[in-house]
Amino acid sequence: MAQAQRIKPRAQDFSEWYNDVIMQAELADYSPVRGCMVIRPLGYRIWELMQRALDDMFAGTGHRNAYFPLFIPMSFLAKEAEHVEGFAKEVALVTHTRLRATGKTGTGAVAVDPSSALEEPLVVRPTSETIIYAMFAKWIHSYRDLPLLLNQWCNVVRWELRTRLFLRTTEFLWQEGHTAHATEAEAEAEARLILGLYRRFAEEWMAMPVLTGVKTESEKFAGAVRTYAIEALMQDNKGLQAGTSHNLGQNFAKAFGVQYQTAAGGLEHVWNTSWGVSTRLVGGLIMTHSDDNGLIAPPKLAPVQTVIVPIWKSDDERSRVSEIGDRVKADLAKSGVRVELDLRDNLKPGAKYFEWEAKGVPLRHVVAGQVVAARRTGGKSPITLDGVVPAVLAALEEIQSGLLVAAKQRREAHSLRGATKQQFLDLMKGSGGGGFVYGGFCGDAACEAAIKAETGATVRVLPDPEFRSPEAPRTCLWCGKPSVAEAVWAQAY
Amino acid sequence: MAQAQRIKPRAQDFSEWYNDVIMQAELADYSPVRGCMVIRPLGYRIWELMQRALDDMFAGTGHRNAYFPLFIPMSFLAKEAEHVEGFAKEVALVTHTRLRATGKTGTGAVAVDPSSALEEPLVVRPTSETIIYAMFAKWIHSYRDLPLLLNQWCNVVRWELRTRLFLRTTEFLWQEGHTAHATEAEAEAEARLILGLYRRFAEEWMAMPVLTGVKTESEKFAGAVRTYAIEALMQDNKGLQAGTSHNLGQNFAKAFGVQYQTAAGGLEHVWNTSWGVSTRLVGGLIMTHSDDNGLIAPPKLAPVQTVIVPIWKSDDERSRVSEIGDRVKADLAKSGVRVELDLRDNLKPGAKYFEWEAKGVPLRHVVAGQVVAARRTGGKSPITLDGVVPAVLAALEEIQSGLLVAAKQRREAHSLRGATKQQFLDLMKGSGGGGFVYGGFCGDAACEAAIKAETGATVRVLPDPEFRSPEAPRTCLWCGKPSVAEAVWAQAY
Repeated sequence: MAQAQRIKPRAQDFSEWYNDVIMQAELADYSPVRGCMVIRPLGYRIWELMQRALDDMFAGTGHRNAYFPLFIPMSFLAKEAEHVEGFAKEVALVTHTRLRATGKTGTGAVAVDPSSALEEPLVVRPTSETIIYAMFAKWIHSYRDLPLLLNQWCNVVRWELRTRLFLRTTEFLWQEGHTAHATEAEAEAEARLILGLYRRFAEEWMAMPVLTGVKTESEKFAGAVRTYAIEALMQDNKGLQAGTSHNLGQNFAKAFGVQYQTAAGGLEHVWNTSWGVSTRLVGGLIMTHSDDNGLIAPPKLAPVQTVIVPIWKSDDERSRVSEIGDRVKADLAKSGVRVELDLRDNLKPGAKYFEWEAKGVPLRHVVAGQVVAARRTGGKSPITLDGVVPAVLAALEEIQSGLLVAAKQRREAHSLRGATKQQFLDLMKGSGGGGFVYGGFCGDAACEAAIKAETGATVRVLPDPEFRSPEAPRTCLWCGKPSVAEAVWAQAY
Repeated sequence: MAQAQRIKPRAQDFSEWYNDVIMQAELADYSPVRGCMVIRPLGYRIWELMQRALDDMFAGTGHRNAYFPLFIPMSFLAKEAEHVEGFAKEVALVTHTRLRATGKTGTGAVAVDPSSALEEPLVVRPTSETIIYAMFAKWIHSYRDLPLLLNQWCNVVRWELRTRLFLRTTEFLWQEGHTAHATEAEAEAEARLILGLYRRFAEEWMAMPVLTGVKTESEKFAGAVRTYAIEALMQDNKGLQAGTSHNLGQNFAKAFGVQYQTAAGGLEHVWNTSWGVSTRLVGGLIMTHSDDNGLIAPPKLAPVQTVIVPIWKSDDERSRVSEIGDRVKADLAKSGVRVELDLRDNLKPGAKYFEWEAKGVPLRHVVAGQVVAARRTGGKSPITLDGVVPAVLAALEEIQSGLLVAAKQRREAHSLRGATKQQFLDLMKGSGGGGFVYGGFCGDAACEAAIKAETGATVRVLPDPEFRSPEAPRTCLWCGKPSVAEAVWAQAY
C-alpha cells in the first residue's frame, strides 16, 4: 500500500495533486518531446467516450465529418491578417523533407539535408480555418450548397511555452467544426446552437457545470467577429475555458473568396462559424471531480463503470465467489454497463480497491459472503444478486447527477456577485484561487489589461442572461466608469 | 444528364477512371498542399465504418487504444539504423516555431523567424515505433506487464514524390498497433493473429479477397525481422499491398532498452510487433468493385446502404409516395439499415438515380405505383411493403457476398501459376496489367532487383500454404536456379 503516498494532497498543492492523479490512474504520461504528452489507454478511452457522445450530437444536428490536411502553406495562414498575427508565435514549421547520413553507414547518424528545403514552409495546423475555407471556395457555388456543416476530429499543434498534461500541450486532439451559411443570422444561430450543445455535453456527460457567454474583444479568437465560450470553475477556484464557438462573419470568406450565387442570381460571400473542444476536457473532468484518492470519473464517461472484486480465503471459496462474479458481470454487461471482474491472484483486495479507486471507477462490488456495493463518492450498501442490474443502473445515475449537483454547489460557493474592487483584489491576491467574480465592466480593453496585470484575472465571459446577476451592475468594478455589461472574472488555465 | 460524361471509361484509362469515380462520388478532393488530400464526408464515412469494424476486432483480441506524439526527435528515429535509413528520404522536418512579420502591420506578410530554430529538429512521424518503444521502456518492468497490446489511430506523413488519392498521399490516416511480448513465439503468434484479422476484415467487410504471406528481405519493413502482408489484385490487374504485420524481433527493444524482469528474476529484452492499415484501404475498395457508373460500395461499408426515391407527377401523388417512403425509411432505420429518403424537388428521378449510383449505394428503392428495388450490381425486382425489411436485409447480404465472389473469380482469372519466364515477360510487358504471377524464386535479392528493373514487378508475397500451387516450383522463374520458395509477382501500387 506504499502507493497510497503517491498522490499529494489536493489542499497542499493543487498542481502536484493534479499530476499525481493523472500518473497514478495511468491516464497520461510525459513524452520525450517537449510539451507533448502520451495519452495512455485509460485517458484515451475517456476521450473516445467523449468523442462518441459529441459526435452523435453533431450528427443529430446535421453535421458531417471530413478530414483536411495537417499542413497549411504559410501563405494561406497569412491571408487573414488578424488570424496569422494571433498564431505567428506558436507554430511548428516544416521546412525540409529529407535527412542525410552524417556518419559511417549503418550507424544511423543523420542531419537535416539542406538540399531538401521547401520553397514555401508549411505550418502544422494550429487550427484549420484557412485550409478548410480554401476548399469551401472550391465546393460552394450556389445557395443550394448551403449550409455546409462539417466537422473534423484531428490533432493540432500550438508551440506553447508552459504546458500541463491535458490542459495545455503543444500537440492536442480536438474537433473543429466549420460551417458556411447564406446569412449572418444563420451563422449566428449556428454558433449559438453549438454553444448550447457544448453546455449540454459538459453538464449531462461530464457533470461539469458551465457558464455560457461571449468573450471580450481582447479574448476572442484571432479572426472571429464574436467568440462564445463555456467556462467552468475547477476545484482550485480557477477558471477553465472548456469550449469555444466562433461567429467568423465574412472575414475568412473574403480572404478566401468563398462566394455563392443567391436564389435571386446575385453573388454573395458566405458567413462562417467554427467551434471546438479538445482533450483539455479530460483535464477539466479530472479537476472538477477527483480527490486525494485519485480520479473520480462521472459514470457516463467512465471507461470502467463498475468493478467486481471477489474475495476468497480458500480455493473452494475462490471458485464460488468467482462464479458469482462471472454471473454479475455477464448480467451487467448485457445491460450495457462497462464492467470488469478482478480475479488477479497476485494482489490483495485492499490493493485492488486502492487501484480501482485511483482509476476513478464509480462503483465497486465486493463479493464475499454477500455482495456489497461501494460508491467512489462515498457510501456502501449490500445488494441482492437478483436486483443487481437495476441497483447498479440506479446507483450510476445517482452518482452522475450527484456529481453535477456537488460541482454546481461548489462553483456557486466560490462565485461572488456585485464584487467591489477591494473584494476582487482580496480574492485574486489571496491563496484561495479567486473563484468567479461578477461585476460591472466598462468595456475598455485598457482597463481589462490593467486588471490582468494586477490580478492575473481575465474576463471569462460576458455571461448570457441566465447567468447574470438580478441587478445589472452600474459601474465598472475596476475603474468606476459606467458599466456596459456584467462580466465574470477569474484566474484561468 | 451531362454528368454522365464525367467518368472516363475504366477500359480506356484506369487511372483517370479511378480519379473520376472519386471526384464524381465526392469521396475526396485534391488540396492546395502538395501530395495531401481532403477526405470528403462520403469518403470519410467509409473510413469511419472501417475503423469501427477494425477497432472492434482489435478490442476483441485484447488491444487498447492510446495516443503518442506526432513529433519524433530526430535522434530517436536514428536509434535503429535500418529504420532511419528506410525513412530518411521521405520525412517532413519541423525546424522552427515562429513566424515574424515582414510587411506593414495588418498585411499579414510573414516569414520563418530564424531566431526560433529548434536545437534538435523534429520528424513528423512516418510511423511511431521509435517514440512508442521509448515509452515502453518506461512502462515495462516485469513479466507481469506483458504482453502490452496497444493500438493508435492517427495521421502519419511520408514525403512521397508521386501521389494518388487514397493510395499514396503525403499525409494519410491509419492505425498502427504496437505490442511487446515476453517471448519470440508470442510475438510471432501476434503478428500472425493480426494478419488473419486483416484478411478477415478485407474479405468479410470490404469483399476484397487477399493473399497472405511473408515479404522478401528487400520488401520488408525497415527495422523488422519479418513482414507479413495481405495483397489484393485490383481491376487493372495490379497488386495492392493492403496491410502489413511485422515481427520486429528485439531490434527496437535493444535500440530503446525495453527490458523486463522474468518470473525467474532474469532481465530480458521484449519482443515487439507492429502492424497497420490505412486510408489506402478506401482506394482498394474503390478499385476492387466500382464501374463506369461510379463507386460500388460493399453494403457493410456503404455510408448509405439503400436510398428511397419516390416518383410523383402531381402534388397528390407526391404526398402519397412520400408517405410510403417515410414508412419504409422508418422501418429500415429501425432494423439498423443506413437509409436515405430522397425528396429533393429540384432534381428529376433520373438525375437522382445517376447521383446515388455514382455514390455507390448498393440498393435503390423506387416508389411509384409499386416499390421496385434495383441493385447497384444489376437486377431489379418489385417488393411488397410488408416484406421490405427482410427483403432489403437479404439483398444487402447477397450483394455483399456476390461482390466477394466476383472479385475472387476476377483475381483467379488473372492469376497464372507455374509461369515460365516468357509468359511472365509477356504478361508484365503487355497492356493487361499483369495480374498475379506465381513461380519459383531463387531467394536472391539481385535476381529480384533484375526482375523489377525489367518488368516493374515485385514479389508481393511468398504465399502462405493455403495459396501455394499444388506442386512446388523447382526452379526460379527468372534465373533458373533452384527455387527456395514459391513467390507471387505483380506490378503494384
